[in-house]
Amino acid sequence: MDEQLTTSKTNIWYTEYHTNSTGITFRVKDILHREDTKYQELVIMDTFDYGKVMLLDGLVMLTDRDEFVYHEMITHVPMHTGRNIKKVLIIGGGDCGTLRELQKYSSIESIIMVEIDGSVVEQSRILFPNVFAEPDKKSKLLIDDGIKFVAETSEKFDLIIIDSTDPIGPAEGLFSEMFYTNCRKILNKDGILALQAESPYIFPKTVENIYKRLSSVFNHVNPYLAYIPTYPSGMWQFLLCSDSDMHEYRQNNASAGFMKSMKYYNPDVHNAAFALPNFVKDIYGL
Amino acid sequence: MDEQLTTSKTNIWYTEYHTNSTGITFRVKDILHREDTKYQELVIMDTFDYGKVMLLDGLVMLTDRDEFVYHEMITHVPMHTGRNIKKVLIIGGGDCGTLRELQKYSSIESIIMVEIDGSVVEQSRILFPNVFAEPDKKSKLLIDDGIKFVAETSEKFDLIIIDSTDPIGPAEGLFSEMFYTNCRKILNKDGILALQAESPYIFPKTVENIYKRLSSVFNHVNPYLAYIPTYPSGMWQFLLCSDSDMHEYRQNNASAGFMKSMKYYNPDVHNAAFALPNFVKDIYGL
Repeated sequence: MDEQLTTSKTNIWYTEYHTNSTGITFRVKDILHREDTKYQELVIMDTFDYGKVMLLDGLVMLTDRDEFVYHEMITHVPMHTGRNIKKVLIIGGGDCGTLRELQKYSSIESIIMVEIDGSVVEQSRILFPNVFAEPDKKSKLLIDDGIKFVAETSEKFDLIIIDSTDPIGPAEGLFSEMFYTNCRKILNKDGILALQAESPYIFPKTVENIYKRLSSVFNHVNPYLAYIPTYPSGMWQFLLCSDSDMHEYRQNNASAGFMKSMKYYNPDVHNAAFALPNFVKDIYGL
Repeated sequence: MDEQLTTSKTNIWYTEYHTNSTGITFRVKDILHREDTKYQELVIMDTFDYGKVMLLDGLVMLTDRDEFVYHEMITHVPMHTGRNIKKVLIIGGGDCGTLRELQKYSSIESIIMVEIDGSVVEQSRILFPNVFAEPDKKSKLLIDDGIKFVAETSEKFDLIIIDSTDPIGPAEGLFSEMFYTNCRKILNKDGILALQAESPYIFPKTVENIYKRLSSVFNHVNPYLAYIPTYPSGMWQFLLCSDSDMHEYRQNNASAGFMKSMKYYNPDVHNAAFALPNFVKDIYGL
């Protein structure tokens, strides 16, 4: 018999290399948007398993399917620390998923979001309608440099959330001690800084450095973890920084009405997230 | 200028497809062993990021770098439930990592391990010296069918650990209600069945079915989670089954001497592992 070509459905794959020797790969349906913005390469693709995926400079920022973990955990953990949080600042967060979660709290009086890249906001509005939240009456969206904003503002906040990309490219300055010091200056008493801090499995040195820098600025830095399958290793580190300890769940009356609608977060998960495996504690010297 | 070939170090990649549209990929240094055993394809490769990796029928079973999570969590969680565990049965576990963890307990009087595939044991002894444990005086290794063993043995156990591959191929019968029923029959009063139960992110239906089958056999089925980066999604489900509730950490004097040497497990992690995100609770109707 002669050789024969075999045919099959077209397979187009995207692979994110977490290091030069490990990666995650998704089968791609379509590339919906591709743009070199003023700051970074923005690509939005549609995938078979994860729905729409946003990439910045080739790294997965969010997927339709698992974005809920990141956005719930970066928002609701600091919101359940027993503080009276009225004024919130978001640095980054261009997809507006963090804004969406914060808008659920009637107790919050004002939210300022400072995102450097207007294209991310614009395309999220169009292509991620389930993630995106329109700024409402009490929230203000500034397309501006978060580092500059934090250095110059005269306002004060009860909670600052750094919802940034990874510490390479435009977000590098968001991981500096100078920036953290400036964040602290604009926090009210007992104010909290919450941020994403990469993967302890894949980037232990990065995570350690972020922790050390923050520990030299804040009295308490409490690490907590969440399962995010489309981020490197699936184990993701978040940090809460303040001048008093925060790692126990405290009820927040403003969340009573929507607590049950969460897909990841609940009081048990809140407390559990602060339990660190020994190899993670070792990174922090805990 | 003329076109030029560019040269670089040779890149050889292994990709595990978790579904037909999602996968994980590792750069390969070397293929150390490749064999069609009586039951399955066994491949052991050396990788740049994860050290040696064992594949059965093309799926990652363990890697040198992150095997500690799986083996600590499948062993030390049931060992800290306040039971007096003297007789243990391992079904599967050919790499002997679970045996290694169990041998740390002086309080355990006998361990029987029943692995169907002698080649897995043989090659683990040679290629995974840090994982492999030689059976000692109180442990007995049988190369035999675990399903048959459980159906026919007249011995009874305080703990049975099902350390199996995925529910396709030779391990399929290890996920059946008949097998679970037979396991229960050979448990002493308050005995525990512990097992790995796949990923709630990627295989929610599989996880649900395993849970349902076990719930029809045992009064209590307590799900717990661990971060395993080289398993699909990085979120891995384990189940503890017994006739009384088990999900709180209880001190075990026999582990006092080695508790600090663990890389993942500690009392806080034990309790935290039972806190389930809402979408996981929904799978189980909890």
